[in-house]
Amino acid sequence: MTGTTSPPHDVSAEQRAREDEVVARVLASFDGCAEPRLRELMRGVVTHLHAFLRDVRLTEDEWGVAIAFLAAAGHITGDRRQEFVLLSDTLGASMQTITINNGAHGDATEATVFGPFFVEGSPEVGIGGDIAFGAAGEPCWVEGSVRDTDGRPVAARLEVWEADDDGLYDVQYGDDRTAARGHLFSGEDGSYRFWAITPTPYPIPHDGPVGQMLESTGRSPMRPAHLHLMAQAPGHRTLVTHIFVRGDEFVDSDAVFGVKDSLIRDFHRQAPGTPTPDGRLIEGTWSRTMFDVVLAPEGP
Amino acid sequence: MTGTTSPPHDVSAEQRAREDEVVARVLASFDGCAEPRLRELMRGVVTHLHAFLRDVRLTEDEWGVAIAFLAAAGHITGDRRQEFVLLSDTLGASMQTITINNGAHGDATEATVFGPFFVEGSPEVGIGGDIAFGAAGEPCWVEGSVRDTDGRPVAARLEVWEADDDGLYDVQYGDDRTAARGHLFSGEDGSYRFWAITPTPYPIPHDGPVGQMLESTGRSPMRPAHLHLMAQAPGHRTLVTHIFVRGDEFVDSDAVFGVKDSLIRDFHRQAPGTPTPDGRLIEGTWSRTMFDVVLAPEGP
Repeated sequence: MTGTTSPPHDVSAEQRAREDEVVARVLASFDGCAEPRLRELMRGVVTHLHAFLRDVRLTEDEWGVAIAFLAAAGHITGDRRQEFVLLSDTLGASMQTITINNGAHGDATEATVFGPFFVEGSPEVGIGGDIAFGAAGEPCWVEGSVRDTDGRPVAARLEVWEADDDGLYDVQYGDDRTAARGHLFSGEDGSYRFWAITPTPYPIPHDGPVGQMLESTGRSPMRPAHLHLMAQAPGHRTLVTHIFVRGDEFVDSDAVFGVKDSLIRDFHRQAPGTPTPDGRLIEGTWSRTMFDVVLAPEGP
Repeated sequence: MTGTTSPPHDVSAEQRAREDEVVARVLASFDGCAEPRLRELMRGVVTHLHAFLRDVRLTEDEWGVAIAFLAAAGHITGDRRQEFVLLSDTLGASMQTITINNGAHGDATEATVFGPFFVEGSPEVGIGGDIAFGAAGEPCWVEGSVRDTDGRPVAARLEVWEADDDGLYDVQYGDDRTAARGHLFSGEDGSYRFWAITPTPYPIPHDGPVGQMLESTGRSPMRPAHLHLMAQAPGHRTLVTHIFVRGDEFVDSDAVFGVKDSLIRDFHRQAPGTPTPDGRLIEGTWSRTMFDVVLAPEGP
């Protein structure tokens, strides 16, 4: 089989009827489902799953490879590793779900993928505090404001998390450290500011089945440098987003398809000795960026 | 959301364009895949997965439930339990794959699902031997012939496996027993005969996530009574099939959609004391059935 598009598979009317009958029987098996939304979802799974099998004419060997892939993904998944999230991310399913559920609303800040590394219960810092907590990396000053789509300031809870200079989140070390994550609140005027570390590109965990999929399809596991940001305030749609770094080598080839042009910012590197906004003494370089958040109102 | 069909989701042209763009970017990420078939499969997965997400307008909470379901399926999967096969079976994906790859060929015996309980290295019995190996159940005499689609006899390897009277396969006991499975060879005249046990209905393993899916959608985990049969001979398409029992209570509601009318047979129950075909002494009842196998030639 060659070429970039599906070959025109030659399926007889009799064979098509046999395959249609399988689909019909499976769909009918959900007729007794009492919960309408669950019935709709299961019928949707069946419809599209069977359309896939028939469209690509999946072989029995390929079916076996798919089953083994899912089992391997299950085995590597544990408290600190979620291979099915990585799979969803690398197939763009996470980004598509985000896109479906976060329709444009005026100039509200766009959402992007949540990722597998968020942890509940991050430490709180005050305005101007440092969420690095000792993580290796160049200091980075982040400031901006939170407003609603009418331009009114919003006092929001801001969760920030990021990988360190070695490309790892704290939870990937397996030693219970908490670093490069924290939360703060924007002020009554909507403004916020904090120290973090300058984000750097890193690969998603690629020593498992998803990594093998990426490698065998010629894809890179790299994500462009980014800070994760989640903004929550009563009466507003929770925003899960990233701040990306303009000029990053991987900004056009994110392994999880999370980049949106509207989320890319300049990170200005400061020479050693440049005075910091809050008088903090830093011997080496540091960077600064600005990111204004606009929250959509709550609701669909 | 109510009703049995998808509601006419109101998606603006702008929103549709945003979702299209996600699909396009994910598809393009596989442009560098050097293996054409793999590229075709991955593009097929992406196309149909995203069509599903957009069609049902999957919510972020539902996405989370799906991820947790897959992780739970992974955790219960081990050497003796393959939840992803059960999932494929109960969504009809296994039967559809069988149907796609085993097109009708003359009067060749129809194929059905393989199931998760086949084991390599089953014991061999001679013609007329007993594959029960002590499994609880009523003795059952099975006889028939193996022929090709031109009616010529075929000396084939026949693998037989089945659940016992408690609805369990040997491998489900976890004590390394081998019972209710074996293999034999049809003779030069194509004929075969063996003792097994009369098959009875049983539930697929339903104490895991797939069982929860069946329960919450109002489906039964029961499979109608059947013997598994695999026939292999050089130059012929390997046949994986079942022999079903006419009149079985679950023959119209198989949890895995494996039943085909052409595979249903009468199992004639014999009164205690009825002489057996080979002079074996049986105190209680026994049953007998006939199943002629027709093998398609090798090839697509």
